[in-house]
Amino acid sequence: MIDLMRTNHRWLLTSRPHGMPSASNFTWNESQVAGLADGQVLVRTVYLSLDPTNRVWMNEADSYLPAIPLGNVMRGGGIGFVEESRNANFAAGDLVQGLLGWQSYYVSHTGKDLNKLPALPIPIEAHFGLLGHIGFTAYFGLLDIGQPKPGETLVVSAAAGAVGSLTGQIGKIKGCRVVGIAGSDEKCKWLTDELGFDAAINYKKDILYSALKAACPKGIDIYFENVGGATLEAVLALVNDNVRIPLCGMISQYNAEIAEPGPRNLASLVMHRGVMKGFIVLDYAPRFAEAARELVAWYAQGKLKYRTDIVKGLEAAPEALLKLFNGANMGKLLVEVSNPES
Amino acid sequence: MIDLMRTNHRWLLTSRPHGMPSASNFTWNESQVAGLADGQVLVRTVYLSLDPTNRVWMNEADSYLPAIPLGNVMRGGGIGFVEESRNANFAAGDLVQGLLGWQSYYVSHTGKDLNKLPALPIPIEAHFGLLGHIGFTAYFGLLDIGQPKPGETLVVSAAAGAVGSLTGQIGKIKGCRVVGIAGSDEKCKWLTDELGFDAAINYKKDILYSALKAACPKGIDIYFENVGGATLEAVLALVNDNVRIPLCGMISQYNAEIAEPGPRNLASLVMHRGVMKGFIVLDYAPRFAEAARELVAWYAQGKLKYRTDIVKGLEAAPEALLKLFNGANMGKLLVEVSNPES
Repeated sequence: MIDLMRTNHRWLLTSRPHGMPSASNFTWNESQVAGLADGQVLVRTVYLSLDPTNRVWMNEADSYLPAIPLGNVMRGGGIGFVEESRNANFAAGDLVQGLLGWQSYYVSHTGKDLNKLPALPIPIEAHFGLLGHIGFTAYFGLLDIGQPKPGETLVVSAAAGAVGSLTGQIGKIKGCRVVGIAGSDEKCKWLTDELGFDAAINYKKDILYSALKAACPKGIDIYFENVGGATLEAVLALVNDNVRIPLCGMISQYNAEIAEPGPRNLASLVMHRGVMKGFIVLDYAPRFAEAARELVAWYAQGKLKYRTDIVKGLEAAPEALLKLFNGANMGKLLVEVSNPES
Repeated sequence: MIDLMRTNHRWLLTSRPHGMPSASNFTWNESQVAGLADGQVLVRTVYLSLDPTNRVWMNEADSYLPAIPLGNVMRGGGIGFVEESRNANFAAGDLVQGLLGWQSYYVSHTGKDLNKLPALPIPIEAHFGLLGHIGFTAYFGLLDIGQPKPGETLVVSAAAGAVGSLTGQIGKIKGCRVVGIAGSDEKCKWLTDELGFDAAINYKKDILYSALKAACPKGIDIYFENVGGATLEAVLALVNDNVRIPLCGMISQYNAEIAEPGPRNLASLVMHRGVMKGFIVLDYAPRFAEAARELVAWYAQGKLKYRTDIVKGLEAAPEALLKLFNGANMGKLLVEVSNPES
């Protein structure tokens, strides 16, 4: 009977941010987990994934997903263990992934919104750092849209971020010269010394255009865009013919109350027959298994490294989210909501 | 012997424009046409094509073609008759097209830079208004990159221009709802009443975003981009998922001394999985014959109309070029350099 008395700790989104999000946009809430009905699955959240796109969901306007209604649990991807199941497709102890939300327990009504995670020779948190939306975004954005060829120059912005750091490493696997843009010397050192990037630029210290020009003596063939704004403008001034620009995100725009102007030199895409293409990783779901196979193999071969930045406790989630936007984060940002060992 | 005394009237580019080009950037020059050497072809220019891209070529920086060196004849596409040939591939009287330049006579050294025009049931000037770089730009930009499907909404900027007006009509042939953006009520009336556009917006009078929203109740699936800047921003606010944006040109940027900012909402491409792709019509040269066949067939069926704006006399070329940028031009702008009848 004690099982029925589980307390669900939750963060509700109760106001919308103007500019940077803050802890005041969220309200802490506790409720009891009710007993399961037929077909339902109860999941205990282990890791919650914090991602720049969370900020997009907090806006009033719908994006590629509907806006989160005020008063609802904050949306977020997570991994957890099935605690109880009244669904034939799931058993207690299964490791599952889904939009569990910022809460300690998630009840799935049909199980269709849960992916059972395969047993792989990787740590649990690697389902976020290496696979999942992070790994698949890097994989499909770079390979499908970027189409890297040996000897080409790939530039990655937000390169020390979870997606950016994998993207650059996959670029190296494909034989590219890889140049990362990041926001601290420490991050740049990590990119070149540990991840094998050919060069890294600290955009807070260097003059971006000059530094890029020096780091890309043959021009830029692929730009993996995570940032937008002035970074894109500097890149567009240095692109080669047939440049490919996968648009993964534009983090510089997400918190802007008055949106920053776009690049003044978009016409460069005309002159250079360039292509810029937005994508949403969910669209590649039918090919996730293929990506997972390759990513795990590269990881096993020591060709892919990832780093996680694990914040302990659901209580810390609102403050932790800020790290994505103020440069404090390095590696995949996760919140450890409950014990991953059991 | 009188043939050897032909006078070549030429406009040389002698200074580079800052902002709008003016007649003062050009210097009138006369020289005698020398006798032909083996392999050479002498062409008498009949029509000279004036295009927004001419402005790009006048800049100091190379673009998809090298910058025009100061002191050289102004570069320009043209059509003319072969007057004399010492090349087995050409005979006097042949109608040819090439970068003849702003001059009354052009000497080709090998003939390789001349395209002999096939005998087609169209007026000579239709080689510019309907075919050539104009028709092929509309054709490949819309069909290859835009990939129009019946029922989709196509928006065309600079819609009363040579490329824009054909693009919209091809969109109608492909079953799209077609909305044009142009700079006067007269132009808008031409688009809807004569060319069959579903709606046309006068951007000088209407509030672009509201007018587009009203004219595109199902959102925008394809945007054929000729303009850049604020127009692109208004469109990006209204695009549907998987929007395709062929980048044909960005005329708003060509004369800007201080480049205008780009759209503030480029991130819309991320959210909507949009693609924006620059192209240069010359890259489609292997498929020009295919395009010409279809365009001529549509013209014969009365499904494609074009309009030319013919300015008489090479002397008038520098002033005529301005019409492309001040809104005075409607239809394909040509300079009649010599008699098209003979």
